[in-house]
Amino acid sequence: MMPTERIYNFSAGPSVLPLPVLEQAASEMTNYRGSGMSVMEMSHRSKVYINIFEETKADLKRILQIPDTHEILFMQGGATLQFSAVPMNLIGKTGKADYAVTGNFSGLAMKEAVKYGDVRTACSSADRNHTYIPAQEDIDVSPDASYFHYCANNTIYGTEWKYVPDTGGVTLVCDMSSNILSVPVDVSKYGLIYAGAQKNMAPAGTAVVIVDKSLIGYEHPLTPKLLSYKIMIESDSMHNTPACYTIYILGLVMKWLDAQGGVEGMEKIKSEKAKILYDTLDESKMFNGCAEKASRSDMNVTFRTGDEELDAKFVKEAKQEGFENLKGHRAVGGMRASIYNAMPMEGVQKLAAFMREFESANK
Amino acid sequence: MMPTERIYNFSAGPSVLPLPVLEQAASEMTNYRGSGMSVMEMSHRSKVYINIFEETKADLKRILQIPDTHEILFMQGGATLQFSAVPMNLIGKTGKADYAVTGNFSGLAMKEAVKYGDVRTACSSADRNHTYIPAQEDIDVSPDASYFHYCANNTIYGTEWKYVPDTGGVTLVCDMSSNILSVPVDVSKYGLIYAGAQKNMAPAGTAVVIVDKSLIGYEHPLTPKLLSYKIMIESDSMHNTPACYTIYILGLVMKWLDAQGGVEGMEKIKSEKAKILYDTLDESKMFNGCAEKASRSDMNVTFRTGDEELDAKFVKEAKQEGFENLKGHRAVGGMRASIYNAMPMEGVQKLAAFMREFESANK
Repeated sequence: MMPTERIYNFSAGPSVLPLPVLEQAASEMTNYRGSGMSVMEMSHRSKVYINIFEETKADLKRILQIPDTHEILFMQGGATLQFSAVPMNLIGKTGKADYAVTGNFSGLAMKEAVKYGDVRTACSSADRNHTYIPAQEDIDVSPDASYFHYCANNTIYGTEWKYVPDTGGVTLVCDMSSNILSVPVDVSKYGLIYAGAQKNMAPAGTAVVIVDKSLIGYEHPLTPKLLSYKIMIESDSMHNTPACYTIYILGLVMKWLDAQGGVEGMEKIKSEKAKILYDTLDESKMFNGCAEKASRSDMNVTFRTGDEELDAKFVKEAKQEGFENLKGHRAVGGMRASIYNAMPMEGVQKLAAFMREFESANK
Repeated sequence: MMPTERIYNFSAGPSVLPLPVLEQAASEMTNYRGSGMSVMEMSHRSKVYINIFEETKADLKRILQIPDTHEILFMQGGATLQFSAVPMNLIGKTGKADYAVTGNFSGLAMKEAVKYGDVRTACSSADRNHTYIPAQEDIDVSPDASYFHYCANNTIYGTEWKYVPDTGGVTLVCDMSSNILSVPVDVSKYGLIYAGAQKNMAPAGTAVVIVDKSLIGYEHPLTPKLLSYKIMIESDSMHNTPACYTIYILGLVMKWLDAQGGVEGMEKIKSEKAKILYDTLDESKMFNGCAEKASRSDMNVTFRTGDEELDAKFVKEAKQEGFENLKGHRAVGGMRASIYNAMPMEGVQKLAAFMREFESANK
């Protein structure tokens, strides 16, 4: 591996971005399209920046088919600040909320919500170390919950919801940080969707929030004003200076996504990429997938050999071949290949080939 | 002006960045120093990124001579989220806080703090539309205030504190968003300093917070965890993914600042730049400075002709000559030339020359 080459970056986030996006950002860095400025240097109130901002928003709205009932917000602080913003804005309706606990981040979201109201576990996969997603019949939603919160894809455990939970009319809130824009979503089913940008969208520093405007009106009086969906809607995400450059990169990613056929195109590509790795696992006598088959994530493929030393050897040798960040999270161990939208097909094919070679060489 | 040239960007923020910083960022965009990745794509827990993060922090500590009693935090949400974080973390000591109101942002900071405690105006410059900074003898600090908050430089009105207020032992909290790193600061005098990055430091998306660790312990129980200084200190600003790329650019700006002679060098340069414009105003029969002389900001030079049409003509013709974003804020009118650290001396000299030419041509 020459130091001038790009590696295959299987990081769980921040993670790989499309190379054409990075190349365009580099080429426009000191002078954005004849403006004489970097996007980093533009007043967020200037016409040239507002055009970038509005186009990014319009592209996101079109690509995700977001209905007019919902507003797109660009907020700072990543998904973690939404763990606080969601209850501060929404739990006031009834004082109660239900959470599905299917991994690390959904657990953290619930723990934070406890500060602001009466919070219940509607379902949990903790009994089998979060290796699966609960079935519809195992979800117990209180009819008087202000909302039901779940995390669509669990990066650490490598599981993904394959269905939209039926809550019997209770508002659906979903953290889609790690699988947004990889599959079509019927946004109208959701009261609120949020996602940290640093996996499928942009560098870290922005959360995209898609909120049904009819949910506004139950904000806790101590809500910091930058966490108020009402204020963010009224100011079109510009109550203060947003993370302008991150939003610009998100805009470039939207153009790239269009060239891949939008979310429909992306769904085909990501399914094919995931199938290559899961087929490799299923054919292997050395590697085992960590997640139960029906709940396997198409974004984060978790696997192990069952031998910690062999796992470490695999990660080390993979790194030498240019496959970076394959070490699994300490909660699961083993390996994790995060194959977000921007991971090239070639990277997945080569990783699968390397896995087979490694298995042959270490029988 | 050719479209391929850089303009002189007098924006109040986001604002001009050093050209060598932008050029370096562009050159490293697809492959940071042989890592095979963009900084945007790096896991915030990876060794390569931690090196960037720690070096940036160490450079900032050295350049601002931050004592070991204080911790540097990189937080998201800009200065505006600190308007909430400061009272949520600090006002609990006595339930009270004092604010100096010397412009728009200090007023907004105070308005937000009212949610969390008993807040008093310790001094105000509203009587003369914020054209001056109150004198020490006009500041009335309550001995039982948890802290006294002021904004060191008022971007909209073009005024700047030329002294550190004596509060008789009450904790000093300062918003230095628009003049940090332009002058040496005795950090040990402050309980807390915060600054949005998008003026003298980096693109928008990060606030630098410098906090005396002994102030921790009075946090409001409803503080969102990402606003908790305690949690941010304990996690070294990595409770969640920070705005990694913005912090990297801040690091490049620190290297550039070193090449300018640090804050001592910067102080000389910025004083010279400001003197060029203020001398031009004082010699002019057409242009008048908006701020009272003793309170003039070295970062934001506000001026007007007294004739709105002539102001508009000046802004328009200046733009044609490559001087962008000179229109004053609507609260003051007229013009504003923001001459932050990265504004080249040449830009200021050329603007002064243009002002003289404009005056001659429009007698």
